[in-house]
Amino acid sequence: MIQPTISWRNNTIKLIDQTKLPDRYVVLSCRDLKTLWQAIKTLKVRGAPAIGVAAAFGVLLAAKKYKGNDITSLRRHLLMASKYIGTSRPTAVNLFNALNDMKHIINDRSLTSVSILQKAIEKKAKEIYETDRRVCRMMGDFGAKLVPSNGKIMTVCNAGALATVDYGTALGVMYSAKKKGKKFKVYSCETRPLLQGARLTTWELLRAKIDTTLICDNMAASLMGKGEVDAIITGADRIASNGDTANKIGTYNLAVLAKHHGVPFYVAAPFSTFDFAIKSGKQIPIEQRSKDEVLGFRNVKSAPANVKVYNPAFDVTDHRLITAIITEGGVITPPFAANIKKAYARSQKKS
Amino acid sequence: MIQPTISWRNNTIKLIDQTKLPDRYVVLSCRDLKTLWQAIKTLKVRGAPAIGVAAAFGVLLAAKKYKGNDITSLRRHLLMASKYIGTSRPTAVNLFNALNDMKHIINDRSLTSVSILQKAIEKKAKEIYETDRRVCRMMGDFGAKLVPSNGKIMTVCNAGALATVDYGTALGVMYSAKKKGKKFKVYSCETRPLLQGARLTTWELLRAKIDTTLICDNMAASLMGKGEVDAIITGADRIASNGDTANKIGTYNLAVLAKHHGVPFYVAAPFSTFDFAIKSGKQIPIEQRSKDEVLGFRNVKSAPANVKVYNPAFDVTDHRLITAIITEGGVITPPFAANIKKAYARSQKKS
Repeated sequence: MIQPTISWRNNTIKLIDQTKLPDRYVVLSCRDLKTLWQAIKTLKVRGAPAIGVAAAFGVLLAAKKYKGNDITSLRRHLLMASKYIGTSRPTAVNLFNALNDMKHIINDRSLTSVSILQKAIEKKAKEIYETDRRVCRMMGDFGAKLVPSNGKIMTVCNAGALATVDYGTALGVMYSAKKKGKKFKVYSCETRPLLQGARLTTWELLRAKIDTTLICDNMAASLMGKGEVDAIITGADRIASNGDTANKIGTYNLAVLAKHHGVPFYVAAPFSTFDFAIKSGKQIPIEQRSKDEVLGFRNVKSAPANVKVYNPAFDVTDHRLITAIITEGGVITPPFAANIKKAYARSQKKS
Repeated sequence: MIQPTISWRNNTIKLIDQTKLPDRYVVLSCRDLKTLWQAIKTLKVRGAPAIGVAAAFGVLLAAKKYKGNDITSLRRHLLMASKYIGTSRPTAVNLFNALNDMKHIINDRSLTSVSILQKAIEKKAKEIYETDRRVCRMMGDFGAKLVPSNGKIMTVCNAGALATVDYGTALGVMYSAKKKGKKFKVYSCETRPLLQGARLTTWELLRAKIDTTLICDNMAASLMGKGEVDAIITGADRIASNGDTANKIGTYNLAVLAKHHGVPFYVAAPFSTFDFAIKSGKQIPIEQRSKDEVLGFRNVKSAPANVKVYNPAFDVTDHRLITAIITEGGVITPPFAANIKKAYARSQKKS
């Protein structure tokens, strides 16, 4: 990457504006929370880990902007900022997990002055940022072993550098495999309606000199039927305790196809994408987005304006369709409920 | 329909230009074969039955344009025209079946003068046109019984009036069900890359006042997982003797999802879509189309120009995934190889 997808510089959140890619590379500076909120809402920054970092930086921005010297009012200000950021998008749990981490700092009564609290907020936000960089590389290394030599991998949406600080989850696995000298090719599903696969994943993979072929989402079965897919690797937006995984719409589609064709189906996601408070995917709220996204693309209309539209941003893949989940704590295989718990506990002990 | 999708008037082939819908309703007049060939190639006219009729009218156009009085040279001229039309698109067998029907006339040695042969050509072409109108209504009536009351039906691409002369195959079933007073709703898959579902099927169904919801192709599994789909009905471009069915890319995808979710999967197609010369779908040639179709969306680019693309226009659905095939000879159920043969023989006897 030319620069991180999201970073903190000069008291400003810098974001690569992903709605402009691949045509234009534009860096957006967020100097106030409303700009950040809009950037998350409109997918200028997207990808569960990246919006987790964005949320943390949002709280940091609010902390920096506070010019008073009353710690109680600062706490109130920061809790309101957290609440506001939390209304931007409902599905990716990284957002809420990052806000919860920030709230622990906000509510830490041992931090007794405005400047001490501000510094603690800055430290935590930067830690969330650095953790993302580190765990993506750890996932990449664990997952690289699953990339078959001379294999053909399919992915959906963008779970790459652009979905994280600078490396990626599913694409991070591919970057690590390439570093280890593995040869493979990637099929990128274009991912309607917002075409993150066509616009972002191909852009990233071409820059990384990985052999990449773009397909429309409805071509996946055709390739699998021909034995042209050896593995599917996707990211995740929220994983329940039992392994059920919410991810970009179309993921469940691929998982069913994978099962039918005997293709292994892998999810790559850090523990910050897990929601240990829920038992199954049934409890994951699924964002419904505007019908305009489906009626066309980038202001070009393709359907009658008065037709009804169904436009969920995500679907939920039943854990029984998932071969393994690649985390920074290693590759987790079924039974997921027990093994996710164990792997997470192990990783907490280490850190 | 305001007028038939394709018709013969004043020695001219009239086509609704389907690349312009739903924005503009434009009727194209083909006064020479090259214009017709381009119209088929660029999908101004599309849908297996409609291009079968287009091919027949193409031969008629060639016959009408012949100004000599040598029957041997007319025969040569018409065979060349047939050959040329046959190069426009490779998968839909209706095109070749219609051309074969025309060739029987061209080669009929009992037709001994230019004007007699020209008249016979005209009669046959109009018969192919009228047959399409008739069999679509017969299929509609047979298929309507399969539409569940208050059911939710999913379809892909456009197998409607716009894919035939004026009624449709899969959508014809829905039109007949509506006529019989059945209530149901339809999910139309948008059908990338050329969006026939978004552009044509929604346009047709809204005009017919059928409750229609547009989805992106990758949302089909999400709906099926929620029990929101009671049946899938699609058209076909070529059906092998064993029931294997080539249809618009994404159809096989839906068939696999249907099997996983226990949803019945129906194909609606006239006998002119069957290729009795081949045993299985493996022998069906699949058209690969330009990468530009996938790189963008109605002239708006959405992917880096230098990425590789896989763009098959069709896929093949294994007959084991098909619940039944709706034809003008009735609803055919497995075992398909035997039952298709029987139903076809029965229908040949009747006609």
